Amino acid sequence: MSEEPRPNETKPWSASVFTLFPDMFPGPLGLSLAGEGLRADRWSLDVHDIRLHGLGRHRAVDDTPAGGGAGMVMRADVLGACIDANLPPGDARPRLLMSPRGKPLTQSRARALAQGEGLVLICGRFEGYDERVIEGRGLEEISIGDYVLSGGELAAMVVLDACVRLLPGIMGKAVSGEEESFENNRLEYPHYTRPREWEGRIIPDVLLSGDHARIRAWREAEAERITRERRPDLLVKE
Amino acid sequence: MSEEPRPNETKPWSASVFTLFPDMFPGPLGLSLAGEGLRADRWSLDVHDIRLHGLGRHRAVDDTPAGGGAGMVMRADVLGACIDANLPPGDARPRLLMSPRGKPLTQSRARALAQGEGLVLICGRFEGYDERVIEGRGLEEISIGDYVLSGGELAAMVVLDACVRLLPGIMGKAVSGEEESFENNRLEYPHYTRPREWEGRIIPDVLLSGDHARIRAWREAEAERITRERRPDLLVKE
Repeated sequence: MSEEPRPNETKPWSASVFTLFPDMFPGPLGLSLAGEGLRADRWSLDVHDIRLHGLGRHRAVDDTPAGGGAGMVMRADVLGACIDANLPPGDARPRLLMSPRGKPLTQSRARALAQGEGLVLICGRFEGYDERVIEGRGLEEISIGDYVLSGGELAAMVVLDACVRLLPGIMGKAVSGEEESFENNRLEYPHYTRPREWEGRIIPDVLLSGDHARIRAWREAEAERITRERRPDLLVKE
Repeated sequence: MSEEPRPNETKPWSASVFTLFPDMFPGPLGLSLAGEGLRADRWSLDVHDIRLHGLGRHRAVDDTPAGGGAGMVMRADVLGACIDANLPPGDARPRLLMSPRGKPLTQSRARALAQGEGLVLICGRFEGYDERVIEGRGLEEISIGDYVLSGGELAAMVVLDACVRLLPGIMGKAVSGEEESFENNRLEYPHYTRPREWEGRIIPDVLLSGDHARIRAWREAEAERITRERRPDLLVKE
């Protein structure tokens, strides 16, 4: 609801979501930073109900897996038709299919996606999508982590939140993206604030010393220590 | 809204969430599988607004970082008081603080958490929490992936969804947890369903052969191939 003019008058970063649960959106993204950005037209969101392209009286969207097995598979023809009906020809935004089989989302990928025009996000349900629609509509499988969710909707929200907070005008100057976890392959150092003493626990002296060089050195050493203890795999990536 | 009796009359798996955005909950978790489970008392959710324990007229919850730097730090005393006021003494549930500095959530961790009594989830905002409340209230930092979100709320929903779908009576028999991605350190094989041909793309013959041994061998080989291509790190974990 900011009154300041938008940095330019080009189209805002736009997200198109395909889901069987359109009522889940914007959900949490309608509040806090992402919600303020949405109302200020710093990004846009349109949500498409895959079931509107379902087949027959019951608007079927899935069927049993070829070759047998548990669960149901989302049909290629239904999602293909829904995508074709809603995305203009030549839409160049990346098309991400939320899937535990996908390439893991990283902070550098979120940064690259935020610098683009926007995103198309397809939310899976059940056992997954028919492989042919992944090939036929140029979908890229992406994963938010090594666990299984009941559907892709929360994963799509996570991708959107990670991108949207990096858009111009969203975070303001309060947060410097450069000292965050995963920048420079380091986890963040510990934070402290008032009061100086709480339940017998005190803020480390160095942070109250006013000596900026010592503070900086302490923080770097702590970031290194925490990364080494918790995520030695990040240090290997250098 | 199921009419079938609960498997037993013990207390359902319970989640307590601490957040500055209580209106975000249950949000997406109020729909689909998790929402049906919530209404059927297969799990419970209570949400606590940290700001109710904020200080002064403005209910302040954060302050500037000791040692300087960008952003604001969530105060130890405010969260400590909110936790103390809302969790009974002796509450033995794991207390997870959503943080990119945390140990990554995995499918096996989700499975272990789903087998417990429930979870306490604390959602961070701004630069993070004062380190002393992490120590003083026995919080365990957990991360859902190597990226930064605008707050811990979506991360908490992801943890809850990953756990809740594994609770008894949630998925039904439609989904077999055992063939999913990350079980046995493999990503899932490709899925196909009707129609047999779509846009010139056909279902692989082997899946229509009716030969269950060949189908099984093909699926195992495909799972291995996809894992090798996309996530060789999973194969190393064996």
